[in-house]
Amino acid sequence: MSDQSPTPAESSYSYLGPAGTFTEAALKQVPDAAGKTWHAVNNVAEALADVVSGRSTAAMIAMENSVDGGVSATQDALANVPGLRIIGEYLVPVNFVLVARPGTTLADVRTVNAHPVAYAQCGTWLNETLPGHGHIPASSNVAAAAALLNDSHADAAIAPPGITEHYPLEVLAEDIGDNGNAVTRFVLVSRSRAIPAPTGADKTSLIVELPDDVSGSLLGMLEQFSTRGVNLSLIQSRPIGDSLGRYRFIIDADGHIADERMADALLGLRRFSPNVIFLGSYPRADKQTIEFTSRYDDAIFIEARQWLRGLLDPNHTAG
Amino acid sequence: MSDQSPTPAESSYSYLGPAGTFTEAALKQVPDAAGKTWHAVNNVAEALADVVSGRSTAAMIAMENSVDGGVSATQDALANVPGLRIIGEYLVPVNFVLVARPGTTLADVRTVNAHPVAYAQCGTWLNETLPGHGHIPASSNVAAAAALLNDSHADAAIAPPGITEHYPLEVLAEDIGDNGNAVTRFVLVSRSRAIPAPTGADKTSLIVELPDDVSGSLLGMLEQFSTRGVNLSLIQSRPIGDSLGRYRFIIDADGHIADERMADALLGLRRFSPNVIFLGSYPRADKQTIEFTSRYDDAIFIEARQWLRGLLDPNHTAG
Amino acid sequence: MSDQSPTPAESSYSYLGPAGTFTEAALKQVPDAAGKTWHAVNNVAEALADVVSGRSTAAMIAMENSVDGGVSATQDALANVPGLRIIGEYLVPVNFVLVARPGTTLADVRTVNAHPVAYAQCGTWLNETLPGHGHIPASSNVAAAAALLNDSHADAAIAPPGITEHYPLEVLAEDIGDNGNAVTRFVLVSRSRAIPAPTGADKTSLIVELPDDVSGSLLGMLEQFSTRGVNLSLIQSRPIGDSLGRYRFIIDADGHIADERMADALLGLRRFSPNVIFLGSYPRADKQTIEFTSRYDDAIFIEARQWLRGLLDPNHTAG
Amino acid sequence: MSDQSPTPAESSYSYLGPAGTFTEAALKQVPDAAGKTWHAVNNVAEALADVVSGRSTAAMIAMENSVDGGVSATQDALANVPGLRIIGEYLVPVNFVLVARPGTTLADVRTVNAHPVAYAQCGTWLNETLPGHGHIPASSNVAAAAALLNDSHADAAIAPPGITEHYPLEVLAEDIGDNGNAVTRFVLVSRSRAIPAPTGADKTSLIVELPDDVSGSLLGMLEQFSTRGVNLSLIQSRPIGDSLGRYRFIIDADGHIADERMADALLGLRRFSPNVIFLGSYPRADKQTIEFTSRYDDAIFIEARQWLRGLLDPNHTAG
Repeated sequence: MSDQSPTPAESSYSYLGPAGTFTEAALKQVPDAAGKTWHAVNNVAEALADVVSGRSTAAMIAMENSVDGGVSATQDALANVPGLRIIGEYLVPVNFVLVARPGTTLADVRTVNAHPVAYAQCGTWLNETLPGHGHIPASSNVAAAAALLNDSHADAAIAPPGITEHYPLEVLAEDIGDNGNAVTRFVLVSRSRAIPAPTGADKTSLIVELPDDVSGSLLGMLEQFSTRGVNLSLIQSRPIGDSLGRYRFIIDADGHIADERMADALLGLRRFSPNVIFLGSYPRADKQTIEFTSRYDDAIFIEARQWLRGLLDPNHTAG
Repeated sequence: MSDQSPTPAESSYSYLGPAGTFTEAALKQVPDAAGKTWHAVNNVAEALADVVSGRSTAAMIAMENSVDGGVSATQDALANVPGLRIIGEYLVPVNFVLVARPGTTLADVRTVNAHPVAYAQCGTWLNETLPGHGHIPASSNVAAAAALLNDSHADAAIAPPGITEHYPLEVLAEDIGDNGNAVTRFVLVSRSRAIPAPTGADKTSLIVELPDDVSGSLLGMLEQFSTRGVNLSLIQSRPIGDSLGRYRFIIDADGHIADERMADALLGLRRFSPNVIFLGSYPRADKQTIEFTSRYDDAIFIEARQWLRGLLDPNHTAG
Repeated sequence: MSDQSPTPAESSYSYLGPAGTFTEAALKQVPDAAGKTWHAVNNVAEALADVVSGRSTAAMIAMENSVDGGVSATQDALANVPGLRIIGEYLVPVNFVLVARPGTTLADVRTVNAHPVAYAQCGTWLNETLPGHGHIPASSNVAAAAALLNDSHADAAIAPPGITEHYPLEVLAEDIGDNGNAVTRFVLVSRSRAIPAPTGADKTSLIVELPDDVSGSLLGMLEQFSTRGVNLSLIQSRPIGDSLGRYRFIIDADGHIADERMADALLGLRRFSPNVIFLGSYPRADKQTIEFTSRYDDAIFIEARQWLRGLLDPNHTAG
Repeated sequence: MSDQSPTPAESSYSYLGPAGTFTEAALKQVPDAAGKTWHAVNNVAEALADVVSGRSTAAMIAMENSVDGGVSATQDALANVPGLRIIGEYLVPVNFVLVARPGTTLADVRTVNAHPVAYAQCGTWLNETLPGHGHIPASSNVAAAAALLNDSHADAAIAPPGITEHYPLEVLAEDIGDNGNAVTRFVLVSRSRAIPAPTGADKTSLIVELPDDVSGSLLGMLEQFSTRGVNLSLIQSRPIGDSLGRYRFIIDADGHIADERMADALLGLRRFSPNVIFLGSYPRADKQTIEFTSRYDDAIFIEARQWLRGLLDPNHTAG
């Protein structure tokens, strides 16, 4: 099988399972994934390993949550696993329900099973409604719910809203998250090196290391974008891991590598940074058209190159 | 009891317990804490609540790990709980051992109980040595070990090296972390508004929100430091939480608020940012003297103020 | 006589004479100068020497011409003569006439007497109207005209429009300058250290040397203004004179030293530069109110200082 | 005759005459000019007109003096006359002598004939040695001396040291300039579009207009150089001439257009500025090799372009 052209018949997708997770909800947004084989996996590393090995054509992984921030496991995996490309972005609203075995009431709940992140996001509601409850951590939101039907010591679980389609549980309370507008951003990752065509509403994801000291070189790195009129929607630091104080930066920049200003910023970054990873250019989930001043139009870049070429050519006539 | 002067007799300290955690190891580094009351708590929120309520004089909390990065819970708590100040910094090397009930051998291990962060940090060793093992998440490294002696379904647990001083467990493997040099940085947090005296090897911790768009205003924020010769040892973004794309920045800057260049940078930041939280100036754990060019000496700042005052005073004689 | 308070009876003014020059036109714009003693001098150095010696209270000197640029002699004198302050700014439209002894016609003109700057500003008209004419340089525009009545070899002279009020000459052509909108900016210079009160439409004039290499430190110098929201209306380089490649910069910045943002920029400049000369804050001739974003309001600066003071005071209660 | 290839036989050179000027001294430094036709002209405009019309292959013109700064007439002419290129740079030490008709002594001197710039550069000596003298302006240093032999009202003239080779005059005093190290920088200007080959010790001369407000856009312009590691040895402002406050900048940048970092800076400038005039890349007169950090090596630029090309090519295999 060629790297670039998996035949459609072979297409398959990995995602953090089981059925009912927010990740599955993200994958449902992908038209090409409909009717294909879906592999439920246990974590980001497994999902990406499926892509690298060719078991799956692509994997849906959580990138960032509006409340919790960047998903460290995803960011670190993208920095360390070579050859991956982001080909799409998807947003899923994050709501939680409290579920229990049929017959349980809120008053019965002493112990709650929940993934630590979900548990943290429901802290206000839990502390007000169930003061003194205990917490048993689970490996996923769906696993927490499923465990109630096995030998769980918990009385209730925090789970996604659609959980009752998959398990015979009862909803004790809805919309228990602290932030009703919470949303998680997922990305679809593949090995394909074909870059989705520019749409005018694109983003480019990068991982960039800095040459030496953090503050001066962070300034220098940001100038690579600002001097080309490229705005950033995300910049996060992650430790490189070898010692305290060494960071790489996870960056989402407005625009597409096919845009002249972005291509020029990438050249500047590559020269500036000891390590730049291009994770891909792809359509933004929010479909917002990128705005930039006309100073950074493609035509301006092209004209400047022609001007320079004319200067270097002694037989050129224009001034 | 006054806010600023808890009598020494009342001093007490909260930390993530139980005994044996890395946090306890950090607290053991604090000379003033020796012989005082120590409260083991379950999480960062509880530790800070103890400080806010006055139950504890100070709390030791994990700030950053060289492998995992900033501790989100700590960063978010410091941003949201007002009136807290960092008064000291402590580094603890992070090593892990695999422990089990006496009589268990490595070959017997099917399921491992571990805090998710510790589990992630031992991934390489676990995948090589125990392929196919299962993971049960625990709320702390020590809790994982302690659970082995109760009704845990796990066969082994990942724990700190000193765990066998507290529990009758056997060490199956030592130094199983992926990174032998991993270190966690802890900070001691109090309500005291007295700032530790400058030592020449200090850092200043801040939380700063940006005025509007991320890239341009991040540049503007960094310039507040660079134009005063202040270097940063840490800059991390955390979502403010109200919507995707809005961030605050957790910053450690080299120097002390009593340094003229730092005080001036703080003035610049306060004017620039819609929200600056001063978390404290305190001695660096690594005791490295801050180096800066003589252009940013205190004397330069003082002379400039005198010059300006002279300009504004018509009776002043100097040029 | 005290340095700061020349009694009004003693007030006198020096200007580049003789009567009829553009400089005299500028001095006529100064209400306080009406009815006082006016000293016509031969050049900028003499005018400033009058001020330094106390012979004159103030001197009117040309600073910049919209066509020719900065007046080097003025800029260098202000850099080298200590203790001078600009206390006012005046604009004079620059028009030229061609004058001759009565009876002369345009067709008779073979040689033109003119100050080199005026000659240059009338080049287009002269080359078209009097091809093949010769040029005799004069020390001032008025001197060129006056010489026609003595033993000048010239047939005509370039002079200011009002010249015929002073000399029995005839105008051969009017408005012969290449640029009909040309204007010269004059400044009134004194030894007084009392700074004119802010009007909201002020400028601050400075001379600033750079620490070392031109490009990097010029950037650093400009940032002292830009990070405080201070715009520049003039920046010109002048050689320091000791070797090629060493420059000082003549700067006009929008605003008054009594404005917080300007005072802070001055502090930054003083720390940054090996030599800053404050030439004064004074009302702009064009009376245009300075616009700046509210981020740089005085109140913002004052509030930031109070915040910092609160941080440094352990008995302070606010957060 | 073709624009690009004047045959050597036709080569001729224009310079500010007459024989004996510093400009002639500069032209003597040009090996190719030896034995060719030299045209002595009266001013910069005539010299450049000779080049434009094809009467001369090249013209030697004064660009900058270490004491007086940039030569405005040259800078404005280069901005306004299209199609000119600087092809060489030459330095001439500037010394002055005071000359008189034979028999005159210093004690006899009442009036001095001198070009205004030379007069200004000898001010200290003149004021000390000849207090109360008068000044008659001359159109050139040599003309001042020559006039003594005609009907000049002057008793002495300021002239270049070699003047007595050309005129029967006596030297009353030598080395009378205020600054013994004064030097004037000349450039050789032609219409040839062939750029001298890079030598490693080159400079590139430019004239750049700014997009809008002076301070912010001057910063933006300087960043085009600083982000490519290009240092500036000269930056001077000149009024564009249409109104006060609008400037163009005369720039000498270290390096050659054939250097990748310079070519990229030129691209950035062209995109940034409403008008960039490339005046040429040519060997520096001081032959100092340009130093820059290895980050800006040609190889770094070339590698970055290859990397970008690889990203854009889906069939490319490297990461």
